[in-house]
Amino acid sequence: MRILAKDLAAAAAGGAAAPVEMCGWVHRLRDMGGLRFLILRDRSGLAQLVLEGEADLPLESAVRVTGTPCLNEKAPGGAELRVSGIECLSRAAGELPFQVNGDIAKVGLEAILDQRALSLRSPKIRSIFRVQATIIEAFAAYLRSEDFTEIKTSKLVASGTEGGTELFRVEYFDRFVYLAQSPQLYKQIMVASGLERVFEIAPAYRAEKHDTPRHLNEYVSLDVEMGFIDSEEDLIALERGLLAHIFEAVASRNEADCAVWNQAAPRPEEAEKAPLIPYAEALEIANAEAKKAGGARIFDINPEAERRVCEWAGRERGSALVFVNEFPRRYRPFYTYPKGEGPGASTMSFDALYRGLEITTGGRRQHDYEALRAVLPRFGLREESLAGYLAVFKYGAPPHGGFAIGLERLTQKILGLANVKEASLFPRDRKRTEP
Amino acid sequence: MRILAKDLAAAAAGGAAAPVEMCGWVHRLRDMGGLRFLILRDRSGLAQLVLEGEADLPLESAVRVTGTPCLNEKAPGGAELRVSGIECLSRAAGELPFQVNGDIAKVGLEAILDQRALSLRSPKIRSIFRVQATIIEAFAAYLRSEDFTEIKTSKLVASGTEGGTELFRVEYFDRFVYLAQSPQLYKQIMVASGLERVFEIAPAYRAEKHDTPRHLNEYVSLDVEMGFIDSEEDLIALERGLLAHIFEAVASRNEADCAVWNQAAPRPEEAEKAPLIPYAEALEIANAEAKKAGGARIFDINPEAERRVCEWAGRERGSALVFVNEFPRRYRPFYTYPKGEGPGASTMSFDALYRGLEITTGGRRQHDYEALRAVLPRFGLREESLAGYLAVFKYGAPPHGGFAIGLERLTQKILGLANVKEASLFPRDRKRTEP
Repeated sequence: MRILAKDLAAAAAGGAAAPVEMCGWVHRLRDMGGLRFLILRDRSGLAQLVLEGEADLPLESAVRVTGTPCLNEKAPGGAELRVSGIECLSRAAGELPFQVNGDIAKVGLEAILDQRALSLRSPKIRSIFRVQATIIEAFAAYLRSEDFTEIKTSKLVASGTEGGTELFRVEYFDRFVYLAQSPQLYKQIMVASGLERVFEIAPAYRAEKHDTPRHLNEYVSLDVEMGFIDSEEDLIALERGLLAHIFEAVASRNEADCAVWNQAAPRPEEAEKAPLIPYAEALEIANAEAKKAGGARIFDINPEAERRVCEWAGRERGSALVFVNEFPRRYRPFYTYPKGEGPGASTMSFDALYRGLEITTGGRRQHDYEALRAVLPRFGLREESLAGYLAVFKYGAPPHGGFAIGLERLTQKILGLANVKEASLFPRDRKRTEP
Repeated sequence: MRILAKDLAAAAAGGAAAPVEMCGWVHRLRDMGGLRFLILRDRSGLAQLVLEGEADLPLESAVRVTGTPCLNEKAPGGAELRVSGIECLSRAAGELPFQVNGDIAKVGLEAILDQRALSLRSPKIRSIFRVQATIIEAFAAYLRSEDFTEIKTSKLVASGTEGGTELFRVEYFDRFVYLAQSPQLYKQIMVASGLERVFEIAPAYRAEKHDTPRHLNEYVSLDVEMGFIDSEEDLIALERGLLAHIFEAVASRNEADCAVWNQAAPRPEEAEKAPLIPYAEALEIANAEAKKAGGARIFDINPEAERRVCEWAGRERGSALVFVNEFPRRYRPFYTYPKGEGPGASTMSFDALYRGLEITTGGRRQHDYEALRAVLPRFGLREESLAGYLAVFKYGAPPHGGFAIGLERLTQKILGLANVKEASLFPRDRKRTEP
């Protein structure tokens, strides 16, 4: 019967009569005064094994051992396994590309990404994806509790809804299709179809040539769409509850993972008391902050402004999370619902900024067929090319809206990672398509 | 305060003093002896509304109404809403492409897929995706309870692992990449990286020209991979428990949805007592069945054989689920682990057949670097083109294996749908790329 490293002390305390089995990787080998120790690493953690005689095992080999759990207060965790048999399941090559049991901070990002099978063996790197798994689970659980239905929609689209210049093109039999930038249209169809409240967890694609620590060409989009809302404030209220739930889940399950990255676990209160600031005011705050720091004038909510607004909120409001709403028309897609009337009207839209980075874009959408048609010329769009999109609004699409959270960005910010690529198992950028 | 259709009777029984609000779509309008009834449909179901005076509302318009809940034993559900105010949120065009409140069975599949925003308003069509959402949730919940970690891997790959002829090609900046057929390599990396047990829910792509009721060019793959196994039987044991859990979840939450499709809810016992039959024996059973039915000889486990083996199992073993293992080498990819030795050896592989359809393919994988290299020539593969794949096995990859369940196929079979496309919100086939 196999036991895990985390259960070794309990097995020793229980005084198991029969020998137990343990499986894992050779994390470390040590000779100490005639005794030979093998530190075994499995999915649950590390365990100390005491060997009799020599063991010809390169580090990182996969092994299966049999032995007797014994209490030993000098052993890490208070117990060790006295090994009676050892089987090498897979012998590692002697030369590792880098030292797995050493300081992973000394290994460069490119090597970490090139060698995922090895770099993830570092408990520090693995902790990133434990946090990420918690985020995914908590996102879905909260929305289900609010009566949302999980959907899965196609990632191959005939054309882009949001513009069309930054799409990856796919050869699809006798034609071309594109990788979806977002499930925007599909989420809207699902609301209009009567599901009313939907969410999706799926990849999204941006063919942008950016190479920054905040961009990925393929990312996981946590998408939400909701019918019968009045304004973007209904969506912000939903996201507050959602993020509070995610923060709580991470705090309760991943406190140790956060600590490895020298981060306090995120606090649900931050989501609850995050300020909501209209765009114009947020820009003023960013400029006031920039001025104090001797920086140049900021003209829109760019990355610098996002950082400055979050710094201000952390200091003045005790929250590193900020909602900014009422973006000017020109910054938002054609389907964004107007707020107010006339040419100076803003929009029922919002961003969520967290620890200096935009993690969410959302808003109420225009649901009126004629109003949508009327707005197209202002955006240089032609009705014919959006016929499929417009058709959805012919047959009773209720007021609705939604938002999306970038999974990797949220993970990055919770753990304070320098680069969003660290929060993607197999990131894709302009140069990287492997592994 | 908005209430849902399903809560109307409770609100009426509670004798709510203040008027309540309801939102939804105009499902049906009826004049009965001077009284005017509006059947409102929301995400929870139908409710009867009694209107005073005329209402100029085309069917399927989205409305918000205010009124008083009243008990009325003649009303469906035992209650109705006496409407005091009605607001049309979105007026539907007068001419609907088909009748939403009529018999959806009369609407052809193409119209159902073309008009998802309308066809999903049919409670019968919507029930398919309620079942699907349950499957996704139950799949993840069971695996988490077995200590599996959810992962998200790239769908853009530099080359195909399993062959390479049936891949969609993507223009990716200055090069070409391909849409992933499966997360095969990535799952294996994750096991080798020490996560040991992983699952992924994500799209997968097959550029096959098939146009059959069992094929999709884009589908949702429910993927599982697990380290430290001995043989495919460990995986089959896992899938039994997993399917039993999914069946139980569907039975407890979606009995009504199954009934709409004239299906009994699936029974967990079917997964537990599903027979495990070696390939050669399954082929004999299929041929014995074919012979009885006057059919021609069957030479491999093709779709006809799958149907016949399931019929046999349903009749003789009381289970419409069958596991077939030990597939011959030639039917399985190069990385499949051998069972036995010599040229006649079979493989540690299996399929799960459910109600006549293959819903799972899986098996133990070869984890030994030298053994993998040695097998390549027999499959016409060159080491150089698989360098990335092989590298994973250099540094202690433990014995492992996994499987994948096709989400749409499982949904299709649970509900007895004629075509797998019915179980995809936005199916992609050779001709269909919209909506």
